[in-house]
Amino acid sequence: MRKLFQEDLQNLGEQLIDISTLVSQAMQKAYRAFEAADVQLAEEVIAADQRIDSLQNDLDERAIDLLALQGPVASDLRTIVGALRMSTSLERMGDLARHIGQLVRLRYPDHVSPDHLKPVYAKMARHAQNVGEKVVVLLQTRDLALVEEIAAENAEIDALHASVFRLIAEEDWDASAATTADCTLASRYFERFGDHGVSVAKKVAYLVTGEWDVRTPAE
Amino acid sequence: MRKLFQEDLQNLGEQLIDISTLVSQAMQKAYRAFEAADVQLAEEVIAADQRIDSLQNDLDERAIDLLALQGPVASDLRTIVGALRMSTSLERMGDLARHIGQLVRLRYPDHVSPDHLKPVYAKMARHAQNVGEKVVVLLQTRDLALVEEIAAENAEIDALHASVFRLIAEEDWDASAATTADCTLASRYFERFGDHGVSVAKKVAYLVTGEWDVRTPAE
Repeated sequence: MRKLFQEDLQNLGEQLIDISTLVSQAMQKAYRAFEAADVQLAEEVIAADQRIDSLQNDLDERAIDLLALQGPVASDLRTIVGALRMSTSLERMGDLARHIGQLVRLRYPDHVSPDHLKPVYAKMARHAQNVGEKVVVLLQTRDLALVEEIAAENAEIDALHASVFRLIAEEDWDASAATTADCTLASRYFERFGDHGVSVAKKVAYLVTGEWDVRTPAE
Repeated sequence: MRKLFQEDLQNLGEQLIDISTLVSQAMQKAYRAFEAADVQLAEEVIAADQRIDSLQNDLDERAIDLLALQGPVASDLRTIVGALRMSTSLERMGDLARHIGQLVRLRYPDHVSPDHLKPVYAKMARHAQNVGEKVVVLLQTRDLALVEEIAAENAEIDALHASVFRLIAEEDWDASAATTADCTLASRYFERFGDHGVSVAKKVAYLVTGEWDVRTPAE
């Protein structure tokens, strides 16, 4: 029974890795769709989010079943509650990749971003993709050095997010108001993706160190 | 011991009501600050969010402690996990009210919204305030009729959110790009506030009916 329970806990961890892998792939594809105004790729990202959502539901139901067992000792409990919290953040990250895909679909065949803003999104996306990849590795390895790296990637995203607003406010910004709104949202989606990545990383750190951090990501 | 545990569960419920009350007040104030470009009121909303965050931390720690007790039967477990999920959504609602306050502070003494868009925000805010108030009453009464009402308020917010983008895209939209970005974010904040309110409502419904809904609010 005890052994079985430990296997269940391990399965939870593997499910988190599976979900985070799909989330990382979603952000990779979402940016490629954004960069190239590739509506087919955007559709793939949008469709794939359903898979992430259903895996999250499965994980959450399993986690709650495990909590219902009399078994959990404090450390197991931390693992299960941590898994519940991480799955929520990962599911949101999938939503945010989907939102980027939806912007691409909405504006197709036009590009969401004006050309002169594309280099900023390219940097934001690279850091967001790094967050996605590092979250997967962190869940696989529990290497806490990655927690700081993810926070650093997110700090870069935040700085780029702020720079988008500065560029929008400049005299020579000549994009349409609709494009301005799209660029604002796209930037916000990358920024939130990074925040949720940090949130997952903090929860992994909590599982390893036992130091609880229940704060949702600051914005 | 059993009696004590039930008291603890009741305390969790009362803490949720306290947090939701602060969240509802935060949205009331945030819109008043937005509508009047009242930077002092905006500062109050921003400062008050720390209180919401610390109450959420307290609640989450208590909930985890309760889960660690051997006590929880399935229904207690639902209550505790539900409280954890609701506190996360409520904390985000507080953040969103704070973000509106931060926009007001950023643009003061200017108004965030151009005059001709203010009637739309007035409607969005009224529905968002209704969501906030109804969440409090729902947590107090568990009257599931409110779950549908909250969903209906949120549907109104979503429609108004869409209308903001239509107005921004119209020929006669003559606001600056910075204002366009602010209006986009403000609309998004109201919209997310409503989504999280629906999320809390669904979790209350789950506690009452036992039908689990782990989905985060759709956007």
